[in-house]
Amino acid sequence: MARILYVLGVLLVVLACAETLPLLADVVAGNADWIVFAVSAMATLFLGVALIFANRQRSDRMSIREAYLLTALVWVVLPVAGAAPFLFSVEGATFTDAFFESVSGLTTTGSTVLTELDVRPPGILLWRSMLQWTGGIGIIVLGIAILPLLRVGGMQLMKTESYDTSDKVLPRAREITAGIAIAYVALTTLCAIAYGLAGMTSFDAVNHAMTTIATGGFSTHDDSFGFFNSPILPWIAIVFMISGALPFTLYLKAVGRDPFAMLKNGQVRFFLGFCALVVGVMTVWAWLTMPLAIYDAFAQSAFNAISIITTTGFASADYTLWGSASVVFLIITFAGGCSGSTAGSVKIFRYQLMWSFLKSQANRLLHPHGVFPVIYDGREVSTSIILSVTAFLGLYLVSWFALSVALALTGLGFQTSLSAAATALTNVGPGLGPIVGPAGNFSSLSDPAKWMLAGGMLIGRLELFTIFILLTPRFWRDF
Amino acid sequence: MARILYVLGVLLVVLACAETLPLLADVVAGNADWIVFAVSAMATLFLGVALIFANRQRSDRMSIREAYLLTALVWVVLPVAGAAPFLFSVEGATFTDAFFESVSGLTTTGSTVLTELDVRPPGILLWRSMLQWTGGIGIIVLGIAILPLLRVGGMQLMKTESYDTSDKVLPRAREITAGIAIAYVALTTLCAIAYGLAGMTSFDAVNHAMTTIATGGFSTHDDSFGFFNSPILPWIAIVFMISGALPFTLYLKAVGRDPFAMLKNGQVRFFLGFCALVVGVMTVWAWLTMPLAIYDAFAQSAFNAISIITTTGFASADYTLWGSASVVFLIITFAGGCSGSTAGSVKIFRYQLMWSFLKSQANRLLHPHGVFPVIYDGREVSTSIILSVTAFLGLYLVSWFALSVALALTGLGFQTSLSAAATALTNVGPGLGPIVGPAGNFSSLSDPAKWMLAGGMLIGRLELFTIFILLTPRFWRDF
Repeated sequence: MARILYVLGVLLVVLACAETLPLLADVVAGNADWIVFAVSAMATLFLGVALIFANRQRSDRMSIREAYLLTALVWVVLPVAGAAPFLFSVEGATFTDAFFESVSGLTTTGSTVLTELDVRPPGILLWRSMLQWTGGIGIIVLGIAILPLLRVGGMQLMKTESYDTSDKVLPRAREITAGIAIAYVALTTLCAIAYGLAGMTSFDAVNHAMTTIATGGFSTHDDSFGFFNSPILPWIAIVFMISGALPFTLYLKAVGRDPFAMLKNGQVRFFLGFCALVVGVMTVWAWLTMPLAIYDAFAQSAFNAISIITTTGFASADYTLWGSASVVFLIITFAGGCSGSTAGSVKIFRYQLMWSFLKSQANRLLHPHGVFPVIYDGREVSTSIILSVTAFLGLYLVSWFALSVALALTGLGFQTSLSAAATALTNVGPGLGPIVGPAGNFSSLSDPAKWMLAGGMLIGRLELFTIFILLTPRFWRDF
Repeated sequence: MARILYVLGVLLVVLACAETLPLLADVVAGNADWIVFAVSAMATLFLGVALIFANRQRSDRMSIREAYLLTALVWVVLPVAGAAPFLFSVEGATFTDAFFESVSGLTTTGSTVLTELDVRPPGILLWRSMLQWTGGIGIIVLGIAILPLLRVGGMQLMKTESYDTSDKVLPRAREITAGIAIAYVALTTLCAIAYGLAGMTSFDAVNHAMTTIATGGFSTHDDSFGFFNSPILPWIAIVFMISGALPFTLYLKAVGRDPFAMLKNGQVRFFLGFCALVVGVMTVWAWLTMPLAIYDAFAQSAFNAISIITTTGFASADYTLWGSASVVFLIITFAGGCSGSTAGSVKIFRYQLMWSFLKSQANRLLHPHGVFPVIYDGREVSTSIILSVTAFLGLYLVSWFALSVALALTGLGFQTSLSAAATALTNVGPGLGPIVGPAGNFSSLSDPAKWMLAGGMLIGRLELFTIFILLTPRFWRDF
């Protein structure tokens, strides 16, 4: 337990240090809000240092149970700490709103309850972007270093992939984490430069670069990408949203010995193929059914579809006005990017696995005694991994249905309930319809609905089992 | 192949004989439509007899592959034969409409494209009810005798249950089938008598009894059960809808050595508990949010919820006007009754299995080397059955999503697409919204949408794999 609180303390100190940046931004802008960040940072720092000192004795190796508890605790405590600036700087903000915004940030979801973004001081806008950016790298590390060890939802499949089959796991792990951090910073910098060259102010460029690579989707404007009205910016966003949704370990491979590592990877190819298919179908459909030129149909379909598939959630148009396309938008919400990326949702490798699994099951029906292995990326997959993935998908569906019903019982309509539940669980951001859709805002929802959605974001971000396992009596027995 | 066509021929002859009943009904009513049934019956009889004679030579035992092909063929050819009376007797009926109505009947779905039912001649109304009644017994036999052997969607779990562990399978099978047919007729008769005593005309009583036990949901009135405006009839319907959704083999057990067999069965208890839970929650919710007395809230919730859960689809109120409850109605569409009943949808035993499976997976996360068997009805379930069930659920979800998108692309809205796809696949009948909802009618849909929905009904009724396996190249290799 001491070890858990120690790590939590370290992360709180990191968060406190991060708060100095929006503090500086407000000081430079001459905005009085800097004091909010100063106080928040001090409180967070104090709490973090206290936890570190109280638990600094050497402790044993962390057990699986402690790893689960730590993961869940980190993702509940950090959002509380991150909520402080919203609570104190936004007039009329309740704790519910502040926590919702902070969770939506750290989980890289991007649903927002803040309105009038265009006239907010720079500090709070930067803080939102930084929460997503921090959450993004946190999720990559979680997906590469922790979830595979916890064997959540078939993530053990990624164990060998991320660390190869080296004997010295820990040094290698540290090396990889450093490499990934460098790749993350480099991609963000490239994205910011590209945005700047294409016409964003440097402040907008930095903010949007952070939320693009994190596939988070917070913007500094109420109209999101619609504000810029630029023909080039959406294409830059598409490139970097996809970059954020690719497996980050492959960037290291690409820089090292194998420049084409990304394109050789089965998951990446399947992901890019899926994006192309969706954009293609949607373009044709939009062109045929709406008064749009073919290029506009293509550009709008590409931006909005890729924004949802990568779980980013930027919007350039209110696609919920695209009539029937809204069913398509609901369904691609469940796609997600690659494993070991910042993207949320179900993720592509699970669909690849399921596809191979369904084929093997169909063959087995005809030939009861035949052997039809499930293949992923050229290797045979063990039954225990298939069971993990199917359990994950089953729990995903149950969670979606349960959250939808709970939201509906608070009085929300059919489309709003189903899509809000989906967009929270998958960490996408916008749902469908006038309230939670791309042109809407989550602020008008009731407090119970906001708490349910914040819970959904955490559950989805931690791949369900990490949270649900804490609810089993067995977890707490003989702790 | 000869054996397949022979069985098909026998079933066509049965269908032709069945057509004499609506023929008689129209003769008695002095309606000229009797000639339609005479011609249809003759044509069906001719085709059936021709198939029997052309394939009457002794043939080998049927292979698994042939069993799949026969099952699929039966459920495509019989609806075509059953469509003839609609095509010739309903003015302006296209083949699309006639086939849709016939498939909706035989699969016991109950979606209808026929309007003005109240003024239709008795023959065609009786034919609709008889299609459902025939389909209902067909589905019980399929679920007890064929699907367990084909090991579709975990149905092999029911193999021992249906035939016990007797060495002489075939005689026992024939005996059980006869027993089930008697139970089916007996329940239908009881239901008709109860309806009659509670005020239905004898014609309405017989028709509704047939579609109640078959959990089909066709009515002889446009307003379905709303037409009767009776306080007692819905409760009778509730009792017999549930009767139709219980495992029919247990009726035999109950009549034989074990009168309480039904209540001792784990699946039945879970099913009844689930019904009680849904009705309870919905009653409280309806009472709190709508201007309804508590008894009315209870009565309406019970009738409409049980009608959906048992996949019958009778309606007493336009519950899509119940606002947020529509999400609940969508979700309980996926419940379904027990295995070996006339009910469609996912079916309760699969949820019981998944629940035990999810618990075992959660335990395994904490104790990687522990043994946590999946238990169903007191017995340990093999991994291969769990894989079958999860594959089934995965394919169910894929089918629902794909059918929803396809419907949306024909121009239908969000709620209509999602709920129509769900109600077809699950063989429930009514969806949500003004078009496909309980107060709507499927007749206004486009022809492509009707074909997609008819396909969905067949796919759902045959538990997906029976149809999808025909689409694999391996199935046709070396046939």
